[in-house]
Amino acid sequence: MQITDLETPVPIVDVEIARHNIRRLQAYCDAHRIKLRPHIKTHKLPLFAHEQIRAGAVGITVQKLGEAETMAESGITDILLTYNVIGQPKAERLAHLTNFARMTVAIDNRNALESVASAAQHAASPIGLFIEFESGANRQGVQTPEQALELAKEAVKHLNIEFKGLLTFPTTSKTTEFLGIALPLFRNAGIGVPIISGGGSQPAFFTHKLAPGVTEMRAGTYIYNDRMMIDAGAATEEACAFKILATVVSRPTADRAIIDAGSKTLSSDLLPSKPQEGYGLLPDYPDAMIARLSEEHGVLDLGRSAQKPEIGERVRIIPNHVCVVTNLHDHIHLHKNGELIARLPIHLRGLTV
Amino acid sequence: MQITDLETPVPIVDVEIARHNIRRLQAYCDAHRIKLRPHIKTHKLPLFAHEQIRAGAVGITVQKLGEAETMAESGITDILLTYNVIGQPKAERLAHLTNFARMTVAIDNRNALESVASAAQHAASPIGLFIEFESGANRQGVQTPEQALELAKEAVKHLNIEFKGLLTFPTTSKTTEFLGIALPLFRNAGIGVPIISGGGSQPAFFTHKLAPGVTEMRAGTYIYNDRMMIDAGAATEEACAFKILATVVSRPTADRAIIDAGSKTLSSDLLPSKPQEGYGLLPDYPDAMIARLSEEHGVLDLGRSAQKPEIGERVRIIPNHVCVVTNLHDHIHLHKNGELIARLPIHLRGLTV
Repeated sequence: MQITDLETPVPIVDVEIARHNIRRLQAYCDAHRIKLRPHIKTHKLPLFAHEQIRAGAVGITVQKLGEAETMAESGITDILLTYNVIGQPKAERLAHLTNFARMTVAIDNRNALESVASAAQHAASPIGLFIEFESGANRQGVQTPEQALELAKEAVKHLNIEFKGLLTFPTTSKTTEFLGIALPLFRNAGIGVPIISGGGSQPAFFTHKLAPGVTEMRAGTYIYNDRMMIDAGAATEEACAFKILATVVSRPTADRAIIDAGSKTLSSDLLPSKPQEGYGLLPDYPDAMIARLSEEHGVLDLGRSAQKPEIGERVRIIPNHVCVVTNLHDHIHLHKNGELIARLPIHLRGLTV
Repeated sequence: MQITDLETPVPIVDVEIARHNIRRLQAYCDAHRIKLRPHIKTHKLPLFAHEQIRAGAVGITVQKLGEAETMAESGITDILLTYNVIGQPKAERLAHLTNFARMTVAIDNRNALESVASAAQHAASPIGLFIEFESGANRQGVQTPEQALELAKEAVKHLNIEFKGLLTFPTTSKTTEFLGIALPLFRNAGIGVPIISGGGSQPAFFTHKLAPGVTEMRAGTYIYNDRMMIDAGAATEEACAFKILATVVSRPTADRAIIDAGSKTLSSDLLPSKPQEGYGLLPDYPDAMIARLSEEHGVLDLGRSAQKPEIGERVRIIPNHVCVVTNLHDHIHLHKNGELIARLPIHLRGLTV
C-alpha cells in the first residue's frame, strides 16, 4: 500500500530519514564525547526509543511520569524525568518505576526534593537527581549557582538519592556562564558534579561551542525535524521525516483552498519568529500559505502560488512544531519511499499526568 | 472522591452548569421556533449528545465521518455532517452510516456532490444535502447565490438525495443578505428550501435578530463555554462548565510560577482579539497571566497578582478554546459541586478522518 492511498488527514514518517537523523546526532555526540539521552516527547514511540538506544544513546528523557511508565513497560531501563515531581501519588509512581528502570529526576525546588526523597525511601534502586538551572529561557530552574548548591546540599543528605549533577534547557552561552560560577562552588563544598546535562534540538549540533562543559545532551525534535527547526537553521527540508498528508476539500475562490487539516490535526503553534507566516510548510506548493486554521479546516492562501492544488488533490505539510502534532494523533504511519511499512499506535499520546 | 484529589493536569466538567447551558439554548430556540442541532465537536461525548436530544434537539452536527460513526454507534439516529465528503472511501463510509442514522451532508462543490451521489446509490435511506454558503468568515461555502442554485440544480437530479436547504457558518448579518438574493432565485427555479441552517455559539442567542430566516441552528461551545465566549460577551465566567485543574510545580522567581499544564494540555490557541493576554483564565487568580506555554509547562506571570499560588497548590483554568482542549484528553472527569461522579473516555477524540 502506498501512503497516498491512506485516508486523510494522516501523519506519516519516512523511516529512512528518521534513522538518518538518529545516526547523525549520535555521530556528532560520539565525535565530541557527549552522551546522548534522546527526549521521546517528539516521537512518543517505544520503537524509535529502542532504535535510539541501539544507535548508542545512554537512555531516554521523558517529560511526564505517564511517559516514563509506558516506556518502562516497553523495556526501556534508563529513564530521566526532567520534571518536578510534586506530591505523594506521583512520588509513589516514581518509586514503583525503580523496580523496572534506573530512574533519574530533575528538580528545582525543595517541595520536589521532598517528593523524590519520599519515593527514594521505598525505591527498589537509588534514584538519580539533577538540579535544573536557568539558562535564559525564563521557564524554570534555580536562578543562581548558590541556590543550586543549597538544594544539592539538601539532596545529598538522603540515602537512596544519587546526586547526578546540573541540568538546563536549552543549552545556551549562559549555560557556560552559570557553570563557571557553580562548579567551583560545588568543588569547594565537596559535592561532585558527575554530569552536566544540556538540552534542545536547535542548539544540539553547536553544543561543543556553546557550552563545552556539557557532558550529556537531551534532544527530541531532531528525529523528525519541523518548520521551526528549518526556520532556526538547524535542519533542512530534506531532513524532515514527518509530514501530515491532507486533501483539498474546497476551492471557494481562485486564490483560496480548504484542506481537511485544521488545528485538531496541525495544532495552532506558529513560528515564534514569523507568526504571520502560517501553520505549516507545503513542500509541493512552497508559495502557498496555510493562513488560518479552524478545528478541521485549513485555509490556504494561494495568492502568491503560481500552481494551485485542485479539489481532491493530496498535499503534504511539514508542521511548524512536530512534537505537539504527534500528540494529536492516535496512530502514525511509517513508510519507505512512499510504501507503507507500519501503522503504529502512539500509546504515549496524551500522557500529560 | 473530590476532584481536587485527582492527579493533574486533568480536565473537569461541572455537570450542573453543562446541563444548565443545554437547557438555556434549547429554551431560546424553542421560544424563537428555531430547531437546535448541537455540534458535538466540543464535548465529543455520546452521553451529552443524548442529553441534548432529550432536551429537545432535532439531531446532532459532526465535523468528520469518524465522529459520525462513533455517534451512530452510540445510538444517535439523526446526524448532519458539515464537511465536504471527497473520494470513494469516504463516500462508502457515508453510505454505510445510512443503515443506522438519517444522514445529511453539507457541501460546497461538485466534487463533493459526486461523492454524496455515489454514496446515495448504495444508501439504505436517502441522504439529505445542504449547500454551504459564505457568510463573511472567508472559509468555505459557495460565494454567490447563483453558485448555490447551480449546485442545487445538479443535486436535485439525483434520486436518493434529498435537498434540505442552505447552510452557513457562522450566522452573521451577511447571512440575511445572501438569503435575500438566494431565496427568490430558488423560488423562481422551483426548488424548495425547507431549512436554513445557521451556526456558531457566539451568535447563537442573537440568531433571531442577526438572521431571522434561520430555521435551524448548530452550536457546540455553548455546552461548556470558554474564555473566547467570555471575551465575545457570549458567556459569563459562571457559565463555564469546563476547567483544567493544574498544579504549581515551581516558583523560580517571586513573580513567576510554573504549572504542569502546557500546550499538550491547554492547546496553543490564543484569544483572537487579545493574543497578548495569554493561554487561559485563572478564576482564583484573575490577575495572573498564563504568559507562555511549553509542551508540559505553563509559565504564569504573577507580576500584577497580589495573591501568588505556592508550589503544590492546585489552580483551575478556563481555557481559551475548549473545543481543541477536549480533543487533547483521553478522559473527562464529571463532577457535582466538586464531587466526582464519572470518569468518561472521550472516544471521539482525535477522529479527524
